Amino acid sequence: MTDLVTLGEAMAVVTATEPGPLAPGKSTRLTFAGAEATVAIGVSRLGHRASWIGRVGTDAAGSMILDGLRAEGIDVSRVRREPSLPTGLMLRERRTADHTRSAYYRKDLAGSRLAPHDVDEELVASARLLHITGITPALGSTARRAVRHAVTVARAAGVTVSLDVNYRSLLWSKDDAATELGFLVRHADIVFAGPEEAQLLVEPAPPAPTAQALCSLGPRQAVVKLGAQGSLAAVDGNLLTQPRVPVTAVDPIGAGDAFVAGYLAAHLDGGTPAERLVTAAICGSFAVSVPGDWEGLPRQHELALLTGDDVIR
Amino acid sequence: MTDLVTLGEAMAVVTATEPGPLAPGKSTRLTFAGAEATVAIGVSRLGHRASWIGRVGTDAAGSMILDGLRAEGIDVSRVRREPSLPTGLMLRERRTADHTRSAYYRKDLAGSRLAPHDVDEELVASARLLHITGITPALGSTARRAVRHAVTVARAAGVTVSLDVNYRSLLWSKDDAATELGFLVRHADIVFAGPEEAQLLVEPAPPAPTAQALCSLGPRQAVVKLGAQGSLAAVDGNLLTQPRVPVTAVDPIGAGDAFVAGYLAAHLDGGTPAERLVTAAICGSFAVSVPGDWEGLPRQHELALLTGDDVIR
Amino acid sequence: MTDLVTLGEAMAVVTATEPGPLAPGKSTRLTFAGAEATVAIGVSRLGHRASWIGRVGTDAAGSMILDGLRAEGIDVSRVRREPSLPTGLMLRERRTADHTRSAYYRKDLAGSRLAPHDVDEELVASARLLHITGITPALGSTARRAVRHAVTVARAAGVTVSLDVNYRSLLWSKDDAATELGFLVRHADIVFAGPEEAQLLVEPAPPAPTAQALCSLGPRQAVVKLGAQGSLAAVDGNLLTQPRVPVTAVDPIGAGDAFVAGYLAAHLDGGTPAERLVTAAICGSFAVSVPGDWEGLPRQHELALLTGDDVIR
Amino acid sequence: MTDLVTLGEAMAVVTATEPGPLAPGKSTRLTFAGAEATVAIGVSRLGHRASWIGRVGTDAAGSMILDGLRAEGIDVSRVRREPSLPTGLMLRERRTADHTRSAYYRKDLAGSRLAPHDVDEELVASARLLHITGITPALGSTARRAVRHAVTVARAAGVTVSLDVNYRSLLWSKDDAATELGFLVRHADIVFAGPEEAQLLVEPAPPAPTAQALCSLGPRQAVVKLGAQGSLAAVDGNLLTQPRVPVTAVDPIGAGDAFVAGYLAAHLDGGTPAERLVTAAICGSFAVSVPGDWEGLPRQHELALLTGDDVIR
Amino acid sequence: MTDLVTLGEAMAVVTATEPGPLAPGKSTRLTFAGAEATVAIGVSRLGHRASWIGRVGTDAAGSMILDGLRAEGIDVSRVRREPSLPTGLMLRERRTADHTRSAYYRKDLAGSRLAPHDVDEELVASARLLHITGITPALGSTARRAVRHAVTVARAAGVTVSLDVNYRSLLWSKDDAATELGFLVRHADIVFAGPEEAQLLVEPAPPAPTAQALCSLGPRQAVVKLGAQGSLAAVDGNLLTQPRVPVTAVDPIGAGDAFVAGYLAAHLDGGTPAERLVTAAICGSFAVSVPGDWEGLPRQHELALLTGDDVIR
Amino acid sequence: MTDLVTLGEAMAVVTATEPGPLAPGKSTRLTFAGAEATVAIGVSRLGHRASWIGRVGTDAAGSMILDGLRAEGIDVSRVRREPSLPTGLMLRERRTADHTRSAYYRKDLAGSRLAPHDVDEELVASARLLHITGITPALGSTARRAVRHAVTVARAAGVTVSLDVNYRSLLWSKDDAATELGFLVRHADIVFAGPEEAQLLVEPAPPAPTAQALCSLGPRQAVVKLGAQGSLAAVDGNLLTQPRVPVTAVDPIGAGDAFVAGYLAAHLDGGTPAERLVTAAICGSFAVSVPGDWEGLPRQHELALLTGDDVIR
Repeated sequence: MTDLVTLGEAMAVVTATEPGPLAPGKSTRLTFAGAEATVAIGVSRLGHRASWIGRVGTDAAGSMILDGLRAEGIDVSRVRREPSLPTGLMLRERRTADHTRSAYYRKDLAGSRLAPHDVDEELVASARLLHITGITPALGSTARRAVRHAVTVARAAGVTVSLDVNYRSLLWSKDDAATELGFLVRHADIVFAGPEEAQLLVEPAPPAPTAQALCSLGPRQAVVKLGAQGSLAAVDGNLLTQPRVPVTAVDPIGAGDAFVAGYLAAHLDGGTPAERLVTAAICGSFAVSVPGDWEGLPRQHELALLTGDDVIR
Repeated sequence: MTDLVTLGEAMAVVTATEPGPLAPGKSTRLTFAGAEATVAIGVSRLGHRASWIGRVGTDAAGSMILDGLRAEGIDVSRVRREPSLPTGLMLRERRTADHTRSAYYRKDLAGSRLAPHDVDEELVASARLLHITGITPALGSTARRAVRHAVTVARAAGVTVSLDVNYRSLLWSKDDAATELGFLVRHADIVFAGPEEAQLLVEPAPPAPTAQALCSLGPRQAVVKLGAQGSLAAVDGNLLTQPRVPVTAVDPIGAGDAFVAGYLAAHLDGGTPAERLVTAAICGSFAVSVPGDWEGLPRQHELALLTGDDVIR
Repeated sequence: MTDLVTLGEAMAVVTATEPGPLAPGKSTRLTFAGAEATVAIGVSRLGHRASWIGRVGTDAAGSMILDGLRAEGIDVSRVRREPSLPTGLMLRERRTADHTRSAYYRKDLAGSRLAPHDVDEELVASARLLHITGITPALGSTARRAVRHAVTVARAAGVTVSLDVNYRSLLWSKDDAATELGFLVRHADIVFAGPEEAQLLVEPAPPAPTAQALCSLGPRQAVVKLGAQGSLAAVDGNLLTQPRVPVTAVDPIGAGDAFVAGYLAAHLDGGTPAERLVTAAICGSFAVSVPGDWEGLPRQHELALLTGDDVIR
Repeated sequence: MTDLVTLGEAMAVVTATEPGPLAPGKSTRLTFAGAEATVAIGVSRLGHRASWIGRVGTDAAGSMILDGLRAEGIDVSRVRREPSLPTGLMLRERRTADHTRSAYYRKDLAGSRLAPHDVDEELVASARLLHITGITPALGSTARRAVRHAVTVARAAGVTVSLDVNYRSLLWSKDDAATELGFLVRHADIVFAGPEEAQLLVEPAPPAPTAQALCSLGPRQAVVKLGAQGSLAAVDGNLLTQPRVPVTAVDPIGAGDAFVAGYLAAHLDGGTPAERLVTAAICGSFAVSVPGDWEGLPRQHELALLTGDDVIR
Repeated sequence: MTDLVTLGEAMAVVTATEPGPLAPGKSTRLTFAGAEATVAIGVSRLGHRASWIGRVGTDAAGSMILDGLRAEGIDVSRVRREPSLPTGLMLRERRTADHTRSAYYRKDLAGSRLAPHDVDEELVASARLLHITGITPALGSTARRAVRHAVTVARAAGVTVSLDVNYRSLLWSKDDAATELGFLVRHADIVFAGPEEAQLLVEPAPPAPTAQALCSLGPRQAVVKLGAQGSLAAVDGNLLTQPRVPVTAVDPIGAGDAFVAGYLAAHLDGGTPAERLVTAAICGSFAVSVPGDWEGLPRQHELALLTGDDVIR
Repeated sequence: MTDLVTLGEAMAVVTATEPGPLAPGKSTRLTFAGAEATVAIGVSRLGHRASWIGRVGTDAAGSMILDGLRAEGIDVSRVRREPSLPTGLMLRERRTADHTRSAYYRKDLAGSRLAPHDVDEELVASARLLHITGITPALGSTARRAVRHAVTVARAAGVTVSLDVNYRSLLWSKDDAATELGFLVRHADIVFAGPEEAQLLVEPAPPAPTAQALCSLGPRQAVVKLGAQGSLAAVDGNLLTQPRVPVTAVDPIGAGDAFVAGYLAAHLDGGTPAERLVTAAICGSFAVSVPGDWEGLPRQHELALLTGDDVIR
């Protein structure tokens, strides 16, 4: 049994340790990343059981990813390993202190082979939440079917479906994305989107009407992620806003996924909409104040660290 | 005008800085590699003009490779950049202090697009040496034709052709390799091979008859690389042996290409066969005593460093 | 259900990255270690289910250890966390390239609180192997009782008991150790010892009679670890020897525990005594060829790496 | 002879080099720290003779601390080395870019053995300043008596006594602290406290009345450290305020001790109260703009660096 | 043929990787720097051919500099190597996060030997721009004559002359500088200066009248670099201002040279004065957002990175 | 009062952390070195009081050197600081794993200004040993006079004079060296030389007659350092040999000075000639098994580490 099931691709990540163009001899650091994996880790650190479904190679990168997820308590028993394909990889240049540029090695590699039969129906049906993103269906046709299959199973079993739009223009066109995401959002209970991403689904508008328009497509909860401006949610017809929790940011990547993890963990905890947004904001700030996409995510007892009063120690 | 032309693939390389399995957070270092590029660098450092032909992406890795080759004085004016494909990449796990395992990201990427029209006929015809390896024809059918085209142009212009067998079992079968390498060796003047590689072309035998058998296929110079045992050459019917130049080895990769670079540079210098083998051995030892495939290669004035007597400074 | 259960202390380890006396500003690296944890990791990497029982603090070091063990697939569900005591720590000075000196922070800290009721009787009784060391009973009186309790439960359930003598002179006197280890060895089926350690239990003698004398105390398998000289075992009355598998050693610590892990994993696989010693020797060599106590341990498919012939790639 | 004598505990410090939870393989750096040692270093760098009294082990950490203090010109001739106890150690997790969490290994270790007979009466009596903190009496009963003894000797000899309240809730209760600090403040000439710390001694109030209330207990100089808000002092009945000197902060730890060092050094220089606060503020800003507690402290000729006008070089 | 010729000194640079006083064991990084080399690199990265004239030693530092310049596509064919003198070197202490202090090893070393006959008259006469700085004439009398010679050749050939005042008080007195720079500015078409530097040439005044006064000395373009306040230019009698492009600054050194490179590259591109200032501002911001003087400089396709709107990827 | 006085130059050292040619971005590490300083540190670590006389700049490198020497307990109270000259610096390329090449920045810098009046006559006359090397007189004419002055004062006071020939061909010719070293050896009681260095003073011969010939010039103790072959000494007419103490060597530089330090420390301890050579050999081996010239030198209680039997811990 599990609280949250998610499915997607996780890749090795090689990141320069200092800003500047890539050059021979440059120091880099290896880790892994994946939007859905980050959500699973965040939810797990906050005390819930999470399962991640995906494919990795039998190479060292694939082992690293599975070890890393296992370290976080994630159930990876449904992951398949592809003996003949490398695990995907991302090479991140920190071009300046503020700007990162990535080259992706993922096309036709292990992660893109995700297929409907990877989706353990029993696992999905017994979970409390299914979380999907707009990245997984863009990986290829079998992955797309896998996501639809997971959604179908979840809906049939009354499992709450969460969708993060997460549009990746390198993977598919806006038209393709709009079609597929249109299907998915209609079957989702919770939807997350940035302001521009939302325009794949609804008319351009300010955050509040955007959230309301997203809800009109089906979800009862729509959250617009506004980056430095915080977030805005429409939940059961009510509008809420949440400012960013201020921290020194050292790595902006992963903030959105951390935000989703916090929201969903608070949802699993039975938190109110306002509590969900607060936890989401805290998680987003933890993520950006530590290098790496998921490494900084908080455990339950750490949530107060960013917001607590300083006390005499 | 140039002394040596070579063509092939150069890739970004990410190498763990310490032995051990890949793990999240592991320190790595970025550089680039490629058998033909290593030969070009080695020949250039020893005072000759070298041109490298190949394709890289328009990504940061591609720029890094071109910058790196330019730093070494290599002519890269014939390199094409592929706007839509990433530059190849190799992820090297130093599994133990002695064993490295690599995952390759090269299939269908920029380097594999090398094609016959990338071969500048005028450049090849005006060179003194064309160096090819068994890796390039294994990259794909257009690359294979490009190598054949270069060889044909060189032969017609009386340019010496050097072939390093360099068999890569991940890229093609022994049968495919034997066929193509059989064609190439017949058009080569100089051939380099390890003992096992040689068996793609000639019957299994000890090094001396192996070298002689290789010469019987066409080349007047056949060099068998024996690793720690040094090397053996058949040149114009004469047999020569050369022991390894002893050094502390910190990274064995690249030794074979460094050896070839030393041999060819001495050849361009008009050195005797024995001098070519000595320079080759020195270059091989420089390569293994420095991390990276090509970084340790010697400049002309450094050749004496490994063999010279210690003097009072 | 599990294949191997072990119990002991795991500590944070801070090791200087370069040789030399400790000095302000020196680079160090953090990891964790523990003889029993290393055995559990080694057995798990070779494909068996392993459980580790012990206590760690609720501090960051304790979380690191549990994450690290979970990453390796170790069952840590029986670990207790001590809210009021820090997790033990070892500060390792690499005084020269060959000599390490450690300061221990473990006295009266979390790990020493291990107690009999931490031993899950059902888990032990259902396992195939219980592995104990001479370190755990030296941690304190409750830990000593915990080890005896585990042994008693295992014997009653017919579970094979493995004992690594692992004498630590900083923790207890030779007399105390001889008494307690005397009790334990009489209840063990497999015993591992270095030549000097063995003298706590049997008369000084060369390795072969030492092994036989150890067997006369109860165990059917006695293995004498001889470091660079390999190992010698008496198994069911037969004597076997196994040389070291040659590698470049970069960190000798952990070799003995890796050896035990290999032996026990092969035992769980149903290997012959000779196969157990070979696997043990390979694991020991993997351990010393990678920094850290357990980081270098091999997975099943990697065992051939150190002994396999080089093949053309 | 010496200008300033102080006594306390100095510990090894292991700090993660990058933000994020502790994890196996994480890079760390070793140094040492101690509130009183930081004050001694700061005063010494500004040109005065300082003596530090304390106990460290005979281990490598103890040697590192003594070497480090000697490098700074501190007189450590009265330090005793405990052969049987490790030197204390602090493991610092930089949980986020802004928040540090430390685990302490100090209980019953070498530093806590400080005792009255460690206090060289002649040295104290001949000094110009005795500096004590609220940390040392919290280390244990002999340390507490040592502090009282030092204060008694100083008072008898007319030596100025400086007290930094430095309340550490991990070491003792507020009640215990209030009692002991109450005694000490009544014998002090200068007292430093944060706003919350001051409430151990006086009624809650804004900074200005707090400083005045502290003076009513005995000291003629009371300085309230306000962090980012600078500081406020009551000196001989006059109130002064001093804003923070703006810098890029990279490590907030040690700022308070650096502030004290600057104040006391200016006091030894015969500076006016305003000059003392300025030097204090500059020292605090130096400390936070360099990693480590004391490493960034300024030498006399560097004081102008933070406040000076940029000049054409 | 070349677009821009410049001449000066390039030195090895050793920079501490972390803030704090220099101490034994401190991590440092090696690179090279030189105001004119930075301008050449910046102009080359933006698509123009640049030549750098200077002298370096035959030591490893000299080779490093030439390799580095070649990597950037700079023509270094006119560089002379001094066999008997080391290449200059700068040791940079990052005293705090905000303040760097350098020790220079350049007096009477290779770079200072630049002489008039190093100036390839044909190369200068065929260029579109000659760029000089106030550093080169301060290196010594032959270097001073070399600069005058280059200016004379350029003027005679109708080549645009650009002068960056770049006053270095360590190298010469204000009087000497004023005399020589007075000569140079009268022969320049473009002049760059900071507000204080400008006072070597014109009366103290606010930026606008300063720029106009500089133009009255001869140049048709005068640019006053105002650091965080951006820049102001007088071009053909018109005044323009340009704010700084906001970025996270990690290394302020090199910003002024980067600014000049951007201005001159846009000039070579035929940009309007406003376009030149924008490109200049962008280049300055790239430089400060990456460690090193020149490493962060942008390529043509990267210019939009700092100013572009974030797009969905 | 002091046990040993020495005088010479100490320089900042920048060393590449990994083998390979210098390249932009290469990681380096800063420390300091100097033959006489190494001897002083070695003697101090072994329990004797040592004074070092020399000049350093007022720059950060000079402060680093003085802090470093003070950390080692060396008396630096006679060191003068040169306000207008930088401290010398050495840039060390580790060209391969086995070969280091250094560029020196020392000519006319602070250290070369050592002069006779820097020699505190009272300090020298009250010492037990004066140690000089052939490097210091090669720094310049005032330094040469300073060495002669120190020797004269020592001889007059009956202080034992130790001379390490330490010929540096970059600093002076063999003829100049032979003349000056001829003078010094005639006034020395102990002389150290390598086999080739000895030929500056005596006829070429094998080690034993070389040592005897050196003694015929005046010294009663002559030690020939033979590197990997150990050492040979003639003491009061008796010949002794000492093999090298085997260790893993990671940095050969400094071994000779460490050897001298060990010999002199044992001499101060009243050790026999054989004991002096053993201590010398141990110190040499400590030095090479740690990076840096002096960092690895042993303290008294560590001497047994390299030669002691391994014990059960």
